[in-house]
Amino acid sequence: MAYNDTDWKAINTIRVLAVDATSKANSGHPGAPMGMAPAAHVLFQKFMKFNPKNPKFLNRDRFVLSNGHGCMLHYALLHLYGYDLSIDDLKNFRQVGSKTPGHPEAHDTPGIEVTTGPLGQGVSNAVGLAIAQAQAGATFNRPGFDILNNFTYVFLGDGCLQEGVASEAASLAGHLQLGNLIAIYDDNHITIDGDTNVSFTEDVLARFEAYGWHTQWVKDGNHDLEGLEKAIEVAKSVTDKPSIIKLTTIIGFGSKQEGTHGVHGSPLKADDAKQVKAKFGFDPEKSFDVPEEVYALYKETADKGAKAEEEWNALFAKYKEQYSAEASEITRRFEKRLPEGWQTSLPVYSTSDSAVASRKLSETVLAKIINTLPELIGGSADLTGSNLTIWKGAVDFQPPSSKIGDYTGRYIRYGVREHGMGAIMNGIAGYGLHIPYGGTFLNFVSYAAGAVRLSALSQHQVIWVATHDSIGLGEDGPTHQPIETVAHLRAIPNLQVWRPADGNETSAAYYIALTSHHTPSVLCLSRQNLPQLENSTVEHAMKGGYVVHEDKEANITLVSTGSEVGICVDAIKTLAGQGIKTRVVSLPCWEVFDTQDQEYRLSVLPDGIPILSVEVYSTLGWEKYSHEQFGLNRFGASGPYKDIYNKFEFTPEGIAKRAKATIDFWQGVSVRSPLKRAFTQLI
Amino acid sequence: MAYNDTDWKAINTIRVLAVDATSKANSGHPGAPMGMAPAAHVLFQKFMKFNPKNPKFLNRDRFVLSNGHGCMLHYALLHLYGYDLSIDDLKNFRQVGSKTPGHPEAHDTPGIEVTTGPLGQGVSNAVGLAIAQAQAGATFNRPGFDILNNFTYVFLGDGCLQEGVASEAASLAGHLQLGNLIAIYDDNHITIDGDTNVSFTEDVLARFEAYGWHTQWVKDGNHDLEGLEKAIEVAKSVTDKPSIIKLTTIIGFGSKQEGTHGVHGSPLKADDAKQVKAKFGFDPEKSFDVPEEVYALYKETADKGAKAEEEWNALFAKYKEQYSAEASEITRRFEKRLPEGWQTSLPVYSTSDSAVASRKLSETVLAKIINTLPELIGGSADLTGSNLTIWKGAVDFQPPSSKIGDYTGRYIRYGVREHGMGAIMNGIAGYGLHIPYGGTFLNFVSYAAGAVRLSALSQHQVIWVATHDSIGLGEDGPTHQPIETVAHLRAIPNLQVWRPADGNETSAAYYIALTSHHTPSVLCLSRQNLPQLENSTVEHAMKGGYVVHEDKEANITLVSTGSEVGICVDAIKTLAGQGIKTRVVSLPCWEVFDTQDQEYRLSVLPDGIPILSVEVYSTLGWEKYSHEQFGLNRFGASGPYKDIYNKFEFTPEGIAKRAKATIDFWQGVSVRSPLKRAFTQLI
Repeated sequence: MAYNDTDWKAINTIRVLAVDATSKANSGHPGAPMGMAPAAHVLFQKFMKFNPKNPKFLNRDRFVLSNGHGCMLHYALLHLYGYDLSIDDLKNFRQVGSKTPGHPEAHDTPGIEVTTGPLGQGVSNAVGLAIAQAQAGATFNRPGFDILNNFTYVFLGDGCLQEGVASEAASLAGHLQLGNLIAIYDDNHITIDGDTNVSFTEDVLARFEAYGWHTQWVKDGNHDLEGLEKAIEVAKSVTDKPSIIKLTTIIGFGSKQEGTHGVHGSPLKADDAKQVKAKFGFDPEKSFDVPEEVYALYKETADKGAKAEEEWNALFAKYKEQYSAEASEITRRFEKRLPEGWQTSLPVYSTSDSAVASRKLSETVLAKIINTLPELIGGSADLTGSNLTIWKGAVDFQPPSSKIGDYTGRYIRYGVREHGMGAIMNGIAGYGLHIPYGGTFLNFVSYAAGAVRLSALSQHQVIWVATHDSIGLGEDGPTHQPIETVAHLRAIPNLQVWRPADGNETSAAYYIALTSHHTPSVLCLSRQNLPQLENSTVEHAMKGGYVVHEDKEANITLVSTGSEVGICVDAIKTLAGQGIKTRVVSLPCWEVFDTQDQEYRLSVLPDGIPILSVEVYSTLGWEKYSHEQFGLNRFGASGPYKDIYNKFEFTPEGIAKRAKATIDFWQGVSVRSPLKRAFTQLI
Repeated sequence: MAYNDTDWKAINTIRVLAVDATSKANSGHPGAPMGMAPAAHVLFQKFMKFNPKNPKFLNRDRFVLSNGHGCMLHYALLHLYGYDLSIDDLKNFRQVGSKTPGHPEAHDTPGIEVTTGPLGQGVSNAVGLAIAQAQAGATFNRPGFDILNNFTYVFLGDGCLQEGVASEAASLAGHLQLGNLIAIYDDNHITIDGDTNVSFTEDVLARFEAYGWHTQWVKDGNHDLEGLEKAIEVAKSVTDKPSIIKLTTIIGFGSKQEGTHGVHGSPLKADDAKQVKAKFGFDPEKSFDVPEEVYALYKETADKGAKAEEEWNALFAKYKEQYSAEASEITRRFEKRLPEGWQTSLPVYSTSDSAVASRKLSETVLAKIINTLPELIGGSADLTGSNLTIWKGAVDFQPPSSKIGDYTGRYIRYGVREHGMGAIMNGIAGYGLHIPYGGTFLNFVSYAAGAVRLSALSQHQVIWVATHDSIGLGEDGPTHQPIETVAHLRAIPNLQVWRPADGNETSAAYYIALTSHHTPSVLCLSRQNLPQLENSTVEHAMKGGYVVHEDKEANITLVSTGSEVGICVDAIKTLAGQGIKTRVVSLPCWEVFDTQDQEYRLSVLPDGIPILSVEVYSTLGWEKYSHEQFGLNRFGASGPYKDIYNKFEFTPEGIAKRAKATIDFWQGVSVRSPLKRAFTQLI
């Protein structure tokens, strides 16, 4: 409990490194690191279980810096503790190609758990990390073998607390009684607009109490190391509630501008930086100067961490003797290997099978694979009966005291919290032992846009079961009918957007989504029934695009997705009546189709005849695969879905009319496939 | 205070109409209307100030049904009170082309204030409506002339309370001490997934107390009309806090399935519908049967409302005598007329002016027009100093007790609450006297996607000042750099997305945004400096696209937006060095360019030579205007912005390389402008 001069030297080293790195970059946020250095020191020295030599040690405590702009705090710690982050890396702060980008990115820097910076995300990720621990612990721990018992710690600021996504996640965390989650709130009274009293005067702790959290207040975060240590101890002892500790600090502590927003987002002035160093007993003329005793102090802790991992390894070896199946499962899941032959459970269909809604096809897939893939952890944002995301015999992930489930449960009731669900799924994926999926209406994936782009950027394997995927949802009307949503998602790098047209395509979508361990997926699924297509096989669909109906003498290719593919097939006959021969192509996943070789792609969308795309969304982007586009560049309508399809002419006749116009327009032109390009896009 | 049999008859009529309409449509949500009919009756009979003959009566109380799926409640009221909504309209519930869509849409139905249904939006709109009233009241009311003193009432359910957007708005409403806002929370313990105890066990009233709201609980919302009336009276008397009344009800009251989620989202079974009618004293065999005494009771109230408007009109006439300037202002703003000649305040630039960041150009526009356009009400989601959204002399919109502003203030400190800001702006616009604008980084407009699409669907004039619009923001890195954002926004119908390249284009963007009274706009603005372009004028840019550099012998057209236009201009020289002649086109707003006639459009993007697009975003959608695309189909990088532009080759050399490839690829092909299409998109 006692802290000595070396402790304060270490704390001040973090502060000074943050000053130096932001000064050298002439960019960044020194204020939060300077204010939160004492808290970071206490947490990492006294509580955190971690091994810098193995940042992926499975049972490590997770640390999330939700106010990611303060990342120099974390980078400084990682360096001082001996992670693979050198002093030169700190000197390269915020430079192109460095391991120290402007906000923490999980795949760039060893020791960073999740990518943060967009406010509210980190703390919500932390809820996911805590859920994952609770679920895995309840599943795998055995008497005498607390194999998975880590805590998740998160630092967050006023900005995170103002974001709705954090409110959603915090409310759910309280409901779930996540005693393994401890948040430390940097109550520094400053945001970019100045004093928090301009917009944020709520009683934060009272709010979190209302959510069901345990709350504490440490009033002098600048000096009271003992008080904070005590508070964290108490928080750890409260096992049936998440904890938040409000820690009142002075932002930019030590700067001449401390306590003002002037120190939030800009480097200190040169003279200020010097006086900070002098004040803290550093040579004002030196930069990136780390006292040896600080390295030594932190190395001692790092060594203890390495030893802790060794002990854990020994425990795990014993566990393996006694519970070999469980141990193998943990290892398999940790290594992201799916069980041998799991894919044989995927359903296959033939054209004689009846028409089924793809949300229902998705339900069948889940029913078939859920017991084979215990890493799957599902849920829905309060649309279970509509998304069809649950399976027979599912146990709710709930606190045992609720009597309606327990922590081994694999079905999460997210509530009406789409953004929270997205960010929590990122955390669950980040823990390393689960593949999370979550259901909502496709239109409301947009509510979670902030989390979806971070799934993609962070390379988290997260699956969205996005039902009611178009005007085909019918009566709920334009407020619920996606128009722009799929264009939005298709524009996000490293995201696979699937819109299967039938049963085999739905199985293919799940196959690729489940085997893409570094890419999130959105499965867009219909409310209405869809026929099983000729030439549709799981293997064909796995290519992202294939020919549903071939005709070597065709005058036109129709390219489509999901519920419109079947209508295009029906249009073949209508067009034949006008003497027009038609090919039909299904393109359920652009991103996967784009990974096929050009020869295959051109066999699907060849030269010579014009291509018309048909999809009941904004046409934006379809020029990439077609010469003309039939879509919906307006909002939808409320009514029975067949009436709406008729209204907007998504019928065999409506398609035929536009196909005819397309053929006429391209008559006499030597038609080149739009797949042929002057240069490739990527650098 | 006394309620008699006719009151209960009216309440039960609402219930039975909801049963009938959902049964006839075989779709919809009877449960909420049946549970909340008593509350609606008390509110509309005893408190609401409204005139069914003039739904736009300026000083009416605003009513928002945030749980919009319960819209049959509101439609029934509108019909019974004599709004222009017939019994046949109720019979057409959820049919294509009806005035009674599946969720309430402001521009479809007289008496609907804002479009709701996507949960959390309505209550946040209500905060905006209340802000607008407070601001307009403080601005225009005079001693003895409470011209604008209406209340805003909102019904909301558990779903709305779980959504983060509502948390954001509620926290701000508490901070702003909006005593004119009264929320009635339908505490029915049911969401789609069943009992709220599966995911929502927080203490809602304690949370709202923490936000600074006044809270009450009426425990028997099914019977205790007097208790609710009293609670609303108390709420009205609390002038320095928004109020929430938790009203415990039974969902689907009267149904055999009352109190279960079975009655939430599906029509009642035929026999259940019959027993409901019998129970409430209606003929079980009749449908849409309204007792005459109910029409009579509600007509009495409607007549009082008409009289209230007459009295208000008389008061306003007197006000006009005494405060003619103020009265004219109210009328002008209500009629959405901008002051004569306001646009002469817009700055214009010439090529001799220095390079300026477009966020800074935006600041200059605001400084010039802010006093001319008092309807402008600005703000930022805690990025004022970065978005440059404030002006010299601005007064904060704050509760007077805060001493840091007052309710006449026109600058709103939204806090770090992008989604809340978007939904609040929709409410402010919906009030009818303001044009709201709000700042954040472009990347974080995505957080508000749910609100942005509702701005477009509801035709609200809302302006996003979206700065830091690309990798050009530099060091903050990929977590803050938009890639997919603009494609997303361009895919939203009825939304104008501007990305100005210089000063005149920025002025043009504001001109069109401010004169488009039924269309929201997003202005994408750079952090970095941009040169003033040759041939750029406000008039040219107002067309959405124009030729920046013409060359009748050109080999290629470069089409670009924003910060890349200047680089394209620089590339002219580089290409000239290779014997290539280049045209450059700026396309700051696709949506506005698309409204120009085809002849003009073809003069900008003509046949004959290939077109290469250049923009540092996802290329998705650019095929619409170009043959080849140079963009960024990956996430960005953290570093000084010039280094990032170099890394991704957005330099004159990088552009020239791709221009050369484009010319080579299209050599020998008769090139047709991509603007020429086989058929028009819209139906």
